[in-house]
Amino acid sequence: MVELIEPSLLVDEKKCRRNIKKMVDKAAANNLQLRPHFKTHQSHHIGSWYRNMGVDKITVSSLKMAEYFAADNWRDITVSFPLNVLEIERINKVAGKVSLNLLVDSPEAIEKVAGKIKSKVGFFIEIDCGYRRTGLDPGNLDTIEKILALLDKNRDFEFKGFLTHAGHSYKAAGDREKILSVHRETKDGMIPLKERYISRYPDLVISDGDTPTFSVAGDFTGIDEVRPGNMVFYDLAQNFIGSCDKDEIAIAMGCPVVAKYPHRDEIVVYGGGEHFSKDYSFLPDGTKHYGKVATPVTDGWDAGETGMYVKSLSHDHGIIHAGKEKAEKLSIGDIIYILPVHACLTAASMRSYILLSGERIERL
Amino acid sequence: MVELIEPSLLVDEKKCRRNIKKMVDKAAANNLQLRPHFKTHQSHHIGSWYRNMGVDKITVSSLKMAEYFAADNWRDITVSFPLNVLEIERINKVAGKVSLNLLVDSPEAIEKVAGKIKSKVGFFIEIDCGYRRTGLDPGNLDTIEKILALLDKNRDFEFKGFLTHAGHSYKAAGDREKILSVHRETKDGMIPLKERYISRYPDLVISDGDTPTFSVAGDFTGIDEVRPGNMVFYDLAQNFIGSCDKDEIAIAMGCPVVAKYPHRDEIVVYGGGEHFSKDYSFLPDGTKHYGKVATPVTDGWDAGETGMYVKSLSHDHGIIHAGKEKAEKLSIGDIIYILPVHACLTAASMRSYILLSGERIERL
Repeated sequence: MVELIEPSLLVDEKKCRRNIKKMVDKAAANNLQLRPHFKTHQSHHIGSWYRNMGVDKITVSSLKMAEYFAADNWRDITVSFPLNVLEIERINKVAGKVSLNLLVDSPEAIEKVAGKIKSKVGFFIEIDCGYRRTGLDPGNLDTIEKILALLDKNRDFEFKGFLTHAGHSYKAAGDREKILSVHRETKDGMIPLKERYISRYPDLVISDGDTPTFSVAGDFTGIDEVRPGNMVFYDLAQNFIGSCDKDEIAIAMGCPVVAKYPHRDEIVVYGGGEHFSKDYSFLPDGTKHYGKVATPVTDGWDAGETGMYVKSLSHDHGIIHAGKEKAEKLSIGDIIYILPVHACLTAASMRSYILLSGERIERL
Repeated sequence: MVELIEPSLLVDEKKCRRNIKKMVDKAAANNLQLRPHFKTHQSHHIGSWYRNMGVDKITVSSLKMAEYFAADNWRDITVSFPLNVLEIERINKVAGKVSLNLLVDSPEAIEKVAGKIKSKVGFFIEIDCGYRRTGLDPGNLDTIEKILALLDKNRDFEFKGFLTHAGHSYKAAGDREKILSVHRETKDGMIPLKERYISRYPDLVISDGDTPTFSVAGDFTGIDEVRPGNMVFYDLAQNFIGSCDKDEIAIAMGCPVVAKYPHRDEIVVYGGGEHFSKDYSFLPDGTKHYGKVATPVTDGWDAGETGMYVKSLSHDHGIIHAGKEKAEKLSIGDIIYILPVHACLTAASMRSYILLSGERIERL
């Protein structure tokens, strides 16, 4: 076991590589271009595991992240977040070095950057297939045409295709049928756009995101590209949704036990909202929880049910429901491993990872 | 107005200094030793504003934070978090330089460090006056005596007093009477301990925490020391509880507008769970929200009601309820200011602050 003295986010490299391989294989089997989302890990080191498996196109969610990965020789990057027109300087810096794609859903955004972007950039038009966060309704051809007209008249701008993120698949907890219905909704929105525009733009790409539908669905006809992110780590939210098995979760927070309250069935660990962030999920009986306790084993952890879970989090404290017997048995100074509810936000709250070898790896 | 290009946590120095002065004045008026909690800001620069007002004793929540502030010449530090027995090396490093107080609620924790701590350290015994997170029941004299016996027999250990954090005051949303009842409960737990032990330990300190009771209560008889933390910034959760006015909130997140959906009454900003963390509060009608929009003015912001609030957060996106008219009026590239729900976790999610002068200040 790795020696830890404070809350530390452990990464099981084997499980991670297995998850990446699963992405690569599934994309290949379905003739899909894989463009994994790197916001989940934001780490050069973990990025190299994808590269080893032949991945050379990536997705990020900010220009800062694009800059960070460009510095590590990634040469084809899509920023899958609405174009922030205030970051012209970063765009020019990155677009000079790499093939950079940006995302828009309004003529206004393009008008604001026209004449200021000095390098060739690609543009995806974002489509909203039901999530209602960002993107145009697939039927809003009027706005799509206005955007295309603006892109066409600018020599440095190239229309790349239509991109969507079916984030409402996250609400389909445990319901495989619902995830598949979100996936059908996505295809119903995107395929007609492909059919309409493919003759005008023969290289156009239909790009789809989200880990749940990519994990669960089996028919990707009409989709060209996928951008799973969370899948590299997975987490309890994904397990709850039905995207993964618990033993595919590739990260766990190691937390020191600092206090014991067997009469309350609880222990308290060093590890709170500052480390986990505050997303929660639910136990089968409806109890809210912020993470589940796994069992340390020689080469990592066993994700099997322990009955122990994070009942609540304050800034630095994690209150663990342990049951009387387990609370008595644990000692102050023991390290327990906690599977997080939301890998992306937990990883963002920490500033580095620890591999099971003990090596610390950095992230943005 | 400060020029921003990405989500940035703005600190209004004037409001901060006013909040610090409020702490200092209230502590002085009530004959209380002020030992403010620095976990909220975790910044040398902001620490200097307290120092300018005569503060020389501080509270932190980790040994890492103790190390960070010791490096900035703070010489009297209490770590108000259950002793993490795995951090002996840090304890010895810090205790060699500063007057360091640790916190315990079990003989087990002391037994684990006895003989390993090589410098003089103070110990507070943590008492639980009703929050049920950490600490001993005030009536648990048996355990208290065991801890005292262990401290007394170790030359390097000094018993400092009893410490409590009435965190359940946070649940007393909007109910002044409930906050005062939490405060009474605290005194009912702590004062008998003082009376019982003061002859044996004439210098013992009764230390009380939490911003809500310190902000609202008026009678601190029997309490010697207070440790307000959040009060330096305040936030919407504190405003909801009734600890502060909205215009006392001293931080706001500046977020670029990246997309507009007037037909949905919404805009989307760059600023999500990675920046705000995920604590929420409620509007008067019970609607959940993750922040409220303030109005930028020449020298900061006006916290008056705008009707605009953060409806939901994903990793990088903030979805703002703006109403049709305001959504239409805002332009892509505008910066809006958002008052956060939970200052401590929002500040921890960001890695630096921007003063209204534009100066960037660092934090741990």
